[in-house]
Amino acid sequence: MTASDLEVLAANEAFYGAFAQTDLATMDRLWAQRAPVACIHPGWGPIIGRDQVMQSFQALFERGGARVACFDASAYLFGDSAYVICVELVGDTRLIATNVFTREDRQWRLVHHQSGAFAASFPELGRRAQAIN
Amino acid sequence: MTASDLEVLAANEAFYGAFAQTDLATMDRLWAQRAPVACIHPGWGPIIGRDQVMQSFQALFERGGARVACFDASAYLFGDSAYVICVELVGDTRLIATNVFTREDRQWRLVHHQSGAFAASFPELGRRAQAIN
Repeated sequence: MTASDLEVLAANEAFYGAFAQTDLATMDRLWAQRAPVACIHPGWGPIIGRDQVMQSFQALFERGGARVACFDASAYLFGDSAYVICVELVGDTRLIATNVFTREDRQWRLVHHQSGAFAASFPELGRRAQAIN
Repeated sequence: MTASDLEVLAANEAFYGAFAQTDLATMDRLWAQRAPVACIHPGWGPIIGRDQVMQSFQALFERGGARVACFDASAYLFGDSAYVICVELVGDTRLIATNVFTREDRQWRLVHHQSGAFAASFPELGRRAQAIN
């Protein structure tokens, strides 16, 4: 694991820390200022644009936030971009998330978050492939 | 919309074309050769690594593929990276997907795909926020 991998994972951890602490100011600092920003909360439609994404977190936080814990994060870097895949636990619900980062002003900042249901183990593959045909 | 936006959207369309036509050779060409590759099919766990991702498509295609249609794609570029958000229709099921691209050898190539359930309209926000607290 490189130093950059660790930096990206630290930014990812800070994202879940801000979530847990309903810390909107930190959340705001963690997202890109210049790159385009979007967010797909689990089950929701896409939220496009920095202001709209921050408003979605503000709305969540004003209602007490979401008890989201992050596990098994792994980072994948390509140039000044990266994505992190991790498991989220929201109460008893297990979700799978992608967090996309870009390096701005030497900081890894979020450009996109998608979280959704995480149901299956790999042997599910065949059954699901049959089910959708 | 810039020329690069259109290139990314064309690469995104080619991805769904290869899906629809169960064209593994084209699918293979659409994914990054050097950047790290991963994929989260709807409801599945993450598939990490180029060979593993291609094997997942091969397994899907050998079973006849998935009738995935893509709608409402929008592209968001930052440097030589981009993400596309789009709605997928698999039969009667509506999914929401993120496709992450990088520019390699002047081609936009996929590095990551996540697709998951797309349930809600924005007024759901308040109810969901309350439900998870």
